[in-house]
Amino acid sequence: MPRYKAVIAYDGTDYCGFQTQDNGKTVQQELEKTLTKFNNGVHVPIHGSGRTDSGVHAEGQVIHFDMPQKRDEEKLRHAFDTQSPEDIAVKSVELVDDEFHARYLAKGKTYHFYVDIGRPRSPFSRRYAAFFPYELDIEKMKKAAELLLGEHDFSGFCATGTEIEDKVRTIYEAKVEQVSETQIRFVFSGNGFLYKMVRIMVGTLLKIGNNRMPVEQITTIIDKKDRNLAGPTAHPEGLYLMEVRYK
Amino acid sequence: MPRYKAVIAYDGTDYCGFQTQDNGKTVQQELEKTLTKFNNGVHVPIHGSGRTDSGVHAEGQVIHFDMPQKRDEEKLRHAFDTQSPEDIAVKSVELVDDEFHARYLAKGKTYHFYVDIGRPRSPFSRRYAAFFPYELDIEKMKKAAELLLGEHDFSGFCATGTEIEDKVRTIYEAKVEQVSETQIRFVFSGNGFLYKMVRIMVGTLLKIGNNRMPVEQITTIIDKKDRNLAGPTAHPEGLYLMEVRYK
Repeated sequence: MPRYKAVIAYDGTDYCGFQTQDNGKTVQQELEKTLTKFNNGVHVPIHGSGRTDSGVHAEGQVIHFDMPQKRDEEKLRHAFDTQSPEDIAVKSVELVDDEFHARYLAKGKTYHFYVDIGRPRSPFSRRYAAFFPYELDIEKMKKAAELLLGEHDFSGFCATGTEIEDKVRTIYEAKVEQVSETQIRFVFSGNGFLYKMVRIMVGTLLKIGNNRMPVEQITTIIDKKDRNLAGPTAHPEGLYLMEVRYK
Repeated sequence: MPRYKAVIAYDGTDYCGFQTQDNGKTVQQELEKTLTKFNNGVHVPIHGSGRTDSGVHAEGQVIHFDMPQKRDEEKLRHAFDTQSPEDIAVKSVELVDDEFHARYLAKGKTYHFYVDIGRPRSPFSRRYAAFFPYELDIEKMKKAAELLLGEHDFSGFCATGTEIEDKVRTIYEAKVEQVSETQIRFVFSGNGFLYKMVRIMVGTLLKIGNNRMPVEQITTIIDKKDRNLAGPTAHPEGLYLMEVRYK
């Protein structure tokens, strides 16, 4: 059967995350519902590059799926996009090799995280950025972010409840930038991220920027592998899966 | 009684416009509900600079209201903001002269209008920008926008159903700019705008940009004062009341 790769964007606000689960509407479910319609009611399973949590957004989630007949890529993309809910967009569809796998062959990912630092909170950011209207030393946060770069065991930045044993990951990019008077953006690229890792890194960097933790705490958290030494998990509405890279 | 002026931002998506009406939730209603709570249940009417339609947003709507006791401006702003719904923000509150009137003393307004020109439509713009994924000649639109500048009778850009007789208004600024690969922004400033005037101007400029109307049609619409010669009314979700100016 022909295999397709698709790039998906979604507003995660009204979803219980990407991956199908027992309770609540998920992005995966909605996408499978659309494809199943195109397949005369025969279920089409999709495979995502990874889960995203409830309320988390994507500009570049990647999925793959198999469909019986060969179809025109743009026609399939257009139908897949317009027949899916308004808060999900299908940005591209391409025929790929049988061997392609959205999850197993992912070589790296990029996440963005937006924080509204204005006061009051903008009504336009409440679904799309976390809120932190407190003192923030951006330079301190930049220094702390640099300490995350490289290959480390990120156990200290991983939420409990994960079954993954190998917690060594490499971070290529860890940036903090003020994008407007009332917004800052974090950018993280790496070969992989652990459960809630980006949100814990952001929560920790905000705590450092707010002068409630020293810059060097980053190194301590990495060395001690202790989640309790890190900051809180930042809220999901600020997080965007921007890109998944393959060989 | 002390009079207060407040600047309000709101995400208009879930409201039937600013002004209280018989059916459906409005921004005015919600703001009055909050102030009435602060006033021991005695109704506090508010006066806005003008109405905004269902689905239209504001970054700088201005209101005024009277409250029995003198209160600290920032404390009142904070309470007013946090006790109002999440999609409404109170940006500032200040004590003003008894003579201040949000509507009658308004000297000018600025509106922005955002259009998502990407394909597919971004899930993040569906509440906050109109969608127009068709060919657009931005230079042509810029030339057409310039023809709107100055003092004119804008009857041809006014929706029917208005009771206002004097339809002469002055437009100081009429700009079209591409703000990102997938978004364009219109900026209009003037001493006042008629019912749905900004949305009809945008709908007309888009039709011109799409080569379905000549640039000079703007002058013809102004001269003939005929709404039927103008383009369609653009969708409300792209429109933002940005600023109301007073002497």
